[in-house]
Amino acid sequence: MILLGSTGSIGVNTLKIAKKFNLNIEVLVAGNNYKLLNQQIKDFNPKYVVVKDRETVKNVDFKNVLWGESSILEVLEKSESNLVVNALVGEAGLRPTLKAQELNKKIALANKESLVIAGKFIDISKITPIDSEHFGLWYLLNGQCKMGNGKLNNEKFKKLYITASGGALRDWEIDKIKEATLKDVLNHPNWSMGKKITIDSATMVNKLFELLEAKWLFNTNNIDAFIETKSVIHALVEWIDGSTTAHISATDMKLPIAFALLKKVDVEILKPINLVEVGSLKFRKIEIKRYPVWEIKETLLNNSDLGVVINTANEFAIEQFLKGKIGFLNISKIILEAVKKFENVKLNSVEDIFEIKNEVRKWCESNFI
Amino acid sequence: MILLGSTGSIGVNTLKIAKKFNLNIEVLVAGNNYKLLNQQIKDFNPKYVVVKDRETVKNVDFKNVLWGESSILEVLEKSESNLVVNALVGEAGLRPTLKAQELNKKIALANKESLVIAGKFIDISKITPIDSEHFGLWYLLNGQCKMGNGKLNNEKFKKLYITASGGALRDWEIDKIKEATLKDVLNHPNWSMGKKITIDSATMVNKLFELLEAKWLFNTNNIDAFIETKSVIHALVEWIDGSTTAHISATDMKLPIAFALLKKVDVEILKPINLVEVGSLKFRKIEIKRYPVWEIKETLLNNSDLGVVINTANEFAIEQFLKGKIGFLNISKIILEAVKKFENVKLNSVEDIFEIKNEVRKWCESNFI
Repeated sequence: MILLGSTGSIGVNTLKIAKKFNLNIEVLVAGNNYKLLNQQIKDFNPKYVVVKDRETVKNVDFKNVLWGESSILEVLEKSESNLVVNALVGEAGLRPTLKAQELNKKIALANKESLVIAGKFIDISKITPIDSEHFGLWYLLNGQCKMGNGKLNNEKFKKLYITASGGALRDWEIDKIKEATLKDVLNHPNWSMGKKITIDSATMVNKLFELLEAKWLFNTNNIDAFIETKSVIHALVEWIDGSTTAHISATDMKLPIAFALLKKVDVEILKPINLVEVGSLKFRKIEIKRYPVWEIKETLLNNSDLGVVINTANEFAIEQFLKGKIGFLNISKIILEAVKKFENVKLNSVEDIFEIKNEVRKWCESNFI
Repeated sequence: MILLGSTGSIGVNTLKIAKKFNLNIEVLVAGNNYKLLNQQIKDFNPKYVVVKDRETVKNVDFKNVLWGESSILEVLEKSESNLVVNALVGEAGLRPTLKAQELNKKIALANKESLVIAGKFIDISKITPIDSEHFGLWYLLNGQCKMGNGKLNNEKFKKLYITASGGALRDWEIDKIKEATLKDVLNHPNWSMGKKITIDSATMVNKLFELLEAKWLFNTNNIDAFIETKSVIHALVEWIDGSTTAHISATDMKLPIAFALLKKVDVEILKPINLVEVGSLKFRKIEIKRYPVWEIKETLLNNSDLGVVINTANEFAIEQFLKGKIGFLNISKIILEAVKKFENVKLNSVEDIFEIKNEVRKWCESNFI
């Protein structure tokens, strides 16, 4: 397989699964963590290695190390593997996804931006999602709806649900949220992740994006989210008959990764959850008062081209928040104002994405700096 | 179809589903509630009607009313319908189940005793269970394990779970349980049912029997139960990979009945559960201290012939408890002693069931009266 983003958490877990099941790694694409990359090269003996920056090349123990985005695209063309695991972070993941599709390769997709900003240009039939919520939905729908080859009978289910942890401020008094510092926001109740995703979890932007991804993956707007504070239930399907089924598992990416790589998994990847040990579960509504971006959920699902607007405004706002230039609630405010400003946005081609992105970025800079 | 037990709660719900989907009722078998039966005859125009006792016959508005168990078996032979809904209460349901099998008819089975006391003589491939827990398991397994024609791939799942409400005494201090009166025991926290089943819920005998039924239905001993106090989750499947899936629905028999009658259901039978409105769920272990019969769970699953022993001892003990002759905890004590006495029981034929039943009954009477 081709592994894009080998030194991140998804990449590392992908290699654990590859080792367990003796899968071949043809390509390793990494950032600049050459120490870990060198170990991976030793362990998996890839045919091609690509790093992010030119100056990293000299530190990599491999005879012909390539670097930069165009090399990723080039190696995708040269490679023989039919499966691409795209675990690149941010917008950098988009072009490789599109190139992999052009080459008719299958994609195990952990890169969120691909679907969030370019979902309408992506052929879902070749995509398997790597994240707990969409994997959970896939798992629940798989048996009953025959999703092989991307064909999903979405007349059988009534509504899809994914769960949210609620983020670091879920138990704060609403009046106090405006005073939340970076340190407060990074104090995630359930796990430790990167800064951006932890902030996205506190604002609920992360879940907004996951709904948009689910829209593309499962071809429906009948999708919503609620808070399950222990992150034990990841996804639920409400069926036409009145039944609801739920997917419950430990939060460990090895499970969705194993399915994305192997299709069928007949061995234990994770220890099962013991609900008696868990003891209790709580469910809460996602309140607009606490999570102001939730107001635009339906707007976004109805005009998915807004994904690029929200993503750009969010990236800008988080930069400002990280620099201490704006308060926590301003992140949501900037996103809501950007959506108001660009509500009629229309994407007609992939290139439009980059144009609109620049436009939104400039607008943010001239209004909020 | 042939409906055995038309005036009970399952029978009434079966007729609601039959009406909704315009299904033909060839046979109505009822107890002695002739008022309701007369209304059902008017509404469904059956070909045969059977009541329990001779003296009820004169009150039924039908030209050739039959009565008694042998008439049920006779009408099963004469009938043309291929589907029998067996909602008879108690041991009376057993012979009709066996006769229906002999005639190669399909059985939608709500009668618990059929599987509990005679599971080994029943061909499961013709059975669809009507109750929330087994239906929930069936629903979860159906997609993934291809259970058509009773063939179940039970290598894919690791363990099955059903839930228990915990009964009327679940929150009592353990030391106080021995003082529980009939009134206390009948005060079920989640719903109102008949006396016997409500007592079986408080002792956990009901759940013990459901595990035994599940053993037969799904061909596995890897099955357990725990308490979910709101009865929102009915069943769970732990899969090999580490995923758990859960079946969630309102507790209304129309759902399992609709599937048992129609196989596929593409319309809403019940309103879905709203977990945010439910708010929270609690899970507890079934403690032997509180539910002494839980001690023999594995013994029963390993020697399912004990089903008839436990059922007989339980029936006897409940009679005594209802008469005020014994305390609540003595029900469990009598069952445990009966299991000790008859631990090596072996059923070689259907007739053995009735012999052992008599033997256990006599032993109970001579030891506990």
